[in-house]
Amino acid sequence: MNKTRLEAFSDGVLAIIITIMVLELKVPEGADFNSLKPLIPIFLSYILSFIYIGIYWNNHHHMMHTVKQISGAILWANLHLLFWLSLIPFVTAWMGENYTAPFPMLLYGVNLLMAGIAYFILQNIIIKKHGPNSILAKAIGKDYKGKLSPILYLTGIGCAYFSPLFSGVIYLLVALIWLIPDKRIEKIIDNE
Amino acid sequence: MNKTRLEAFSDGVLAIIITIMVLELKVPEGADFNSLKPLIPIFLSYILSFIYIGIYWNNHHHMMHTVKQISGAILWANLHLLFWLSLIPFVTAWMGENYTAPFPMLLYGVNLLMAGIAYFILQNIIIKKHGPNSILAKAIGKDYKGKLSPILYLTGIGCAYFSPLFSGVIYLLVALIWLIPDKRIEKIIDNE
Amino acid sequence: MNKTRLEAFSDGVLAIIITIMVLELKVPEGADFNSLKPLIPIFLSYILSFIYIGIYWNNHHHMMHTVKQISGAILWANLHLLFWLSLIPFVTAWMGENYTAPFPMLLYGVNLLMAGIAYFILQNIIIKKHGPNSILAKAIGKDYKGKLSPILYLTGIGCAYFSPLFSGVIYLLVALIWLIPDKRIEKIIDNE
Amino acid sequence: MNKTRLEAFSDGVLAIIITIMVLELKVPEGADFNSLKPLIPIFLSYILSFIYIGIYWNNHHHMMHTVKQISGAILWANLHLLFWLSLIPFVTAWMGENYTAPFPMLLYGVNLLMAGIAYFILQNIIIKKHGPNSILAKAIGKDYKGKLSPILYLTGIGCAYFSPLFSGVIYLLVALIWLIPDKRIEKIIDNE
Repeated sequence: MNKTRLEAFSDGVLAIIITIMVLELKVPEGADFNSLKPLIPIFLSYILSFIYIGIYWNNHHHMMHTVKQISGAILWANLHLLFWLSLIPFVTAWMGENYTAPFPMLLYGVNLLMAGIAYFILQNIIIKKHGPNSILAKAIGKDYKGKLSPILYLTGIGCAYFSPLFSGVIYLLVALIWLIPDKRIEKIIDNE
Repeated sequence: MNKTRLEAFSDGVLAIIITIMVLELKVPEGADFNSLKPLIPIFLSYILSFIYIGIYWNNHHHMMHTVKQISGAILWANLHLLFWLSLIPFVTAWMGENYTAPFPMLLYGVNLLMAGIAYFILQNIIIKKHGPNSILAKAIGKDYKGKLSPILYLTGIGCAYFSPLFSGVIYLLVALIWLIPDKRIEKIIDNE
Repeated sequence: MNKTRLEAFSDGVLAIIITIMVLELKVPEGADFNSLKPLIPIFLSYILSFIYIGIYWNNHHHMMHTVKQISGAILWANLHLLFWLSLIPFVTAWMGENYTAPFPMLLYGVNLLMAGIAYFILQNIIIKKHGPNSILAKAIGKDYKGKLSPILYLTGIGCAYFSPLFSGVIYLLVALIWLIPDKRIEKIIDNE
Repeated sequence: MNKTRLEAFSDGVLAIIITIMVLELKVPEGADFNSLKPLIPIFLSYILSFIYIGIYWNNHHHMMHTVKQISGAILWANLHLLFWLSLIPFVTAWMGENYTAPFPMLLYGVNLLMAGIAYFILQNIIIKKHGPNSILAKAIGKDYKGKLSPILYLTGIGCAYFSPLFSGVIYLLVALIWLIPDKRIEKIIDNE
């Protein structure tokens, strides 16, 4: 059972998600700078989600690199992750159009949290399949980032009612923490 | 004649189908929880169709794994399957927006039935090409799931006029039956 | 210089073209059978274009199978073909919504003709690169289909003003002629 | 660390960008030739952007061919390039609908400039990783095209306020300069 198609399908879905988000940048009626102004928050939320999908693709790329056998459980855990990521364009557009409202900001955080949980499940299924001495298990190590992210997401979700802007800053902070690709895996692969 | 491009093209089409369905989740006008409420049935039908496309991708993955030679007949039977699956976003959106109406619920079932028939045709052409002792022929065996599904689809279609909700439950039931990837093929491949 | 990415990119574009066409099947307002009726001509034109894209993918698949070296000219001739095919969703939707009007039917034929010419150019560049004794040159042979198609397209285009329906029948006829994959290439490859 | 997925993901994103641009060609209300007229500038800007995405895909193809090792920096520089290219459908549609207005024409040029800078950064990171004697470093050489393009983009951006049409001609000129694939790389690869 090879992993090529799993990667190809995931790449396809992630490539489409990252690209159709731009369809939410509706062409404005006017032709001057002012007609672009309402698009600025939508554009900023597009950048944030672009970075998130980029991070997921990046880490997915690294994680799958360590996978040797694909099982039914891995296939479905991967689809589960893609499901939550497929909702990102929707919550991004809603947040972009209502960036001062608490609920869209909260929902964006919930979506990030669910995607994070789905990634965590996929990661654990792969480790279980390949054993505690596998490259991935060693590479993850204590998984500080993986443990910190849900706490930050929950903080963002909890704060959305009081300050949507603050929640947005938290979501950006998590993105920046992850922006650096998983050096740990790269390092351990090099040592093998 | 290699099968790589057939798989790549199918993966591409399935990845796009599964992702553009989310475009039917139109960003609501308001920014509170109530403005999301009308989207709930559309969201639920999105989940159902996501699972179905996931199942088709999954089983297609397993089936193609056993294929050694691609013929013109296989290419067209595959395109025929993709045709019916490409209509899923349309029937999903229509059903989601009219979940209490019989006809959209009936049409969703008809689409599932046609996709099931197209899959059955593809499967039989592959078996014919590779012989009754091929991995796929052995793996399919008595094909209980494949025989049960059209009966359930027809039940759902027939009941739509009396209870659209009941039809929806039936379609969900078929999805749950198939959710488990085809262990039969995995098993026989391992024994080879 | 390998051909894998050329095939992957072409597969991607063709997969997207064939799938986004379904977005023109707008979800109707009503929920009964009558509300589907206006969609029937759009659906029929979708089927026709689906078959055409399928044929192009199929023949592209066979043709690229014979290619050994990719040159800049092949890359651009391939992009030129993809350009005309990328317009198919537009002319399909326009024709579907105005199936009794001559001009949309004429434009559909013009698009098919331009795609056919682009395919012909690509084919000739590949043959020139690989020599008159290459697999493709032998397989094409007298290329009856390739010579008949533009004549039929021109007939369809010329008749659109008098009978749009007749033009549609001609376009369907060309599709049926091509529906059978290029046995000629398959045959010669088998003999090599 | 292999480059296959980087290429596959980039191909996917570029294939989607080049194809969804056609969605901006909205099906007109009428069915005669006159109803197509307002689409002509949108169509022309579609052709221009199609050529640009084609050039980027083409050069990306050549550049990645010389890459032996993928690093985190290359991954993110590549995503940065894809980000700017993902905005092309938006600026294309806006320019097409307002081809006599200075600001949309200026923004199109800014987007081309940013994509050019992103490509330049990616190129430099790859050269740094592979050394000054790498195929790419030798192939780029003095990089006349790469140095001329930003100057021309800036000219187009600067002139947009006085003559949007002139800016459009400049953007077309840059496309024509690049239309020829990078013979330099092809040549040096052949000599290796």
